[in-house]
Amino acid sequence: MDTREIAEDFAALCKADRHEEAGARYWSEDVVSREAMDGPMAELRGREAVKGKGEWWYANHEIHSATTEGPFVHGDQFALRFEMDVTVKESGQRIQMAEIGLYTVKDGKVVEERFFY
Amino acid sequence: MDTREIAEDFAALCKADRHEEAGARYWSEDVVSREAMDGPMAELRGREAVKGKGEWWYANHEIHSATTEGPFVHGDQFALRFEMDVTVKESGQRIQMAEIGLYTVKDGKVVEERFFY
Repeated sequence: MDTREIAEDFAALCKADRHEEAGARYWSEDVVSREAMDGPMAELRGREAVKGKGEWWYANHEIHSATTEGPFVHGDQFALRFEMDVTVKESGQRIQMAEIGLYTVKDGKVVEERFFY
Repeated sequence: MDTREIAEDFAALCKADRHEEAGARYWSEDVVSREAMDGPMAELRGREAVKGKGEWWYANHEIHSATTEGPFVHGDQFALRFEMDVTVKESGQRIQMAEIGLYTVKDGKVVEERFFY
C-alpha cells in the first residue's frame, strides 16, 4: 500500500470512530506520538505507550461528537483534521476543539504522529 | 517572535486575503515550497521563485471565495487549512478544494512550506 492508500484507510477508520483500530493496524512497533505540550504526554514511544495514551484519553473524556476530515497527502506524510466536542470528566468543562494530526509513513506503517493545535 | 506569534500573524494575513504579504514578511531568503505533485511546481527554492508561483496561481485562477483556518501549532511548525472555490481560467472548470499548508519556522522565518491535498 502506498501512503495515500494507508491514509485513506486510516481516515476511514477514524471517520467510523474506530481510532484504536486505525492505530492497531498501522502504528509501527516503535511509533512516536508527539503532542504540542510539555509534560508526560509530550512524546510517547512504542505501540503500547501510544495505545495507553489513547485509552487514558477515552477514559477521561466524554465524547459528544467527533469528526475526521481528510486525508490530505504529501509524499510519505498525511494529515487529518479532527473536530471534537467533549467534556473533561474531572473538571466537567465542555470544550470544542479542532486539531490536525500529521502522520509519517515508512515501510507501510505510521512511524510518527504529531498533533497541532 | 516565537512560532505561535508568527503563525498567528501569518494566518491573520491569509484570512485577510493578503497571502503575498504573509510571504513577503515571513519567507526566508532560501525558503523551499513543496507541492504534492510531480512537475515544475513540485519544489521551488528561494523567495523569488516562490513568489512567482503565487503570481502564476493568481493569474490563472479566478477566486470566488477563499478561507483560512488556523493556525495549528506544534514546536517549530504550524499548519493552516485553506478552502477555496475557484475557476481554472484555461479550462473554465470550477473546483472547490481544501488543503493543508505545513510551515516550518527557523530564526523567525518560514524556511519550508509544504502543501497537502
